[in-house]
Amino acid sequence: MYRPQYKYKRTFIGSIPSDADLYNALSKIVIEEDIRIGKITAIGAVTNAVIGYFDQNKKEYIKIELNSGFEILSCIGNVSVREGKSFVHAHIILGNKEGKVFGGHLMPGTKVFACEVFIEEYSGEDLVREKDSTTDLYLWKNKDLV
Amino acid sequence: MYRPQYKYKRTFIGSIPSDADLYNALSKIVIEEDIRIGKITAIGAVTNAVIGYFDQNKKEYIKIELNSGFEILSCIGNVSVREGKSFVHAHIILGNKEGKVFGGHLMPGTKVFACEVFIEEYSGEDLVREKDSTTDLYLWKNKDLV
Amino acid sequence: MYRPQYKYKRTFIGSIPSDADLYNALSKIVIEEDIRIGKITAIGAVTNAVIGYFDQNKKEYIKIELNSGFEILSCIGNVSVREGKSFVHAHIILGNKEGKVFGGHLMPGTKVFACEVFIEEYSGEDLVREKDSTTDLYLWKNKDLV
Repeated sequence: MYRPQYKYKRTFIGSIPSDADLYNALSKIVIEEDIRIGKITAIGAVTNAVIGYFDQNKKEYIKIELNSGFEILSCIGNVSVREGKSFVHAHIILGNKEGKVFGGHLMPGTKVFACEVFIEEYSGEDLVREKDSTTDLYLWKNKDLV
Repeated sequence: MYRPQYKYKRTFIGSIPSDADLYNALSKIVIEEDIRIGKITAIGAVTNAVIGYFDQNKKEYIKIELNSGFEILSCIGNVSVREGKSFVHAHIILGNKEGKVFGGHLMPGTKVFACEVFIEEYSGEDLVREKDSTTDLYLWKNKDLV
Repeated sequence: MYRPQYKYKRTFIGSIPSDADLYNALSKIVIEEDIRIGKITAIGAVTNAVIGYFDQNKKEYIKIELNSGFEILSCIGNVSVREGKSFVHAHIILGNKEGKVFGGHLMPGTKVFACEVFIEEYSGEDLVREKDSTTDLYLWKNKDLV
């Protein structure tokens, strides 16, 4: 079968400053730089977090609000195209002062304490999100790998 | 000392569809594309998970079965060569509807709800897995970095 | 606004052997290879772990010691420059035999059972850590992305 292949283009590396909204900041960067295909990797800390869990039966996101400081142990995600615009999809994993761990789908409302981000940009055919009838999620159209 | 260096070649980006077995799907991709050196990064969701923990004293995997839906908060791993064939080694981190987190060594039996995958392919000297007498794991032969 | 851009250079891929100190081994590699801009990705297992949580009010790290074996579910981080030298900043996520997960800022004292590491090296303007007055952390100077 044909599998979509991409080439590396360049990498943005830098910080998201204190008090920025992490999801909105990532969105702003990829929209302003017109990154259409990308991979996001970040570590750092947040002062609070808003994360989601997709209920696979009800087909809707449950929002989870965590109101204390956490280390960002991992925030990985991707950049593709939704409704013609660069769109960030990322998941975040958080650690508290006892080393306990929480995580979910990164949502607006998560505030940065400090954050170090890599955004790898690729060239190739757009990855376009459209509503998928099986899951009700906006998934990449015609980009199955198996 | 000599340290093994590699060059980036290309990136496969795409989806693993609903109901696919995540480990088996990743294996199928890397075998069919003959990716011998690679790095895997994925996020998404699963309907259940089968993960392992390697008992360092008994030197065997303990299998953990998690029978509900989870977000894939992170699935990172690598591709190398075992018994002449492309081989996937990946670890997965899962979040439930309360934001609680579980994880382990990704095993066959983990079913995808939706999953977005990057596989970076590299060129260079093969990374070959052979049984290591200290750990009883199949580790890369002669590829120590320190 | 100007955003710092980097180009991929090469990738070190290999193992950290049993009994090595994970943080110190990563530091040794990046110093000896003079990697000034890099991204670290690793999976594996440890026999114990020493991790940190940065208390955002007291502005100091709380050290957490975990005295048993764990899978390394994720260890991601970066390489930049601090006091003129290559410096590793990484966060680690660990899974135990029940699939429960712990994690924090990777500190010296974490001993490897087996570990497979990718270090991507980039070229571009140095990312230099200096003490930041808002957080009391050593953050990248003049590298904000928003």
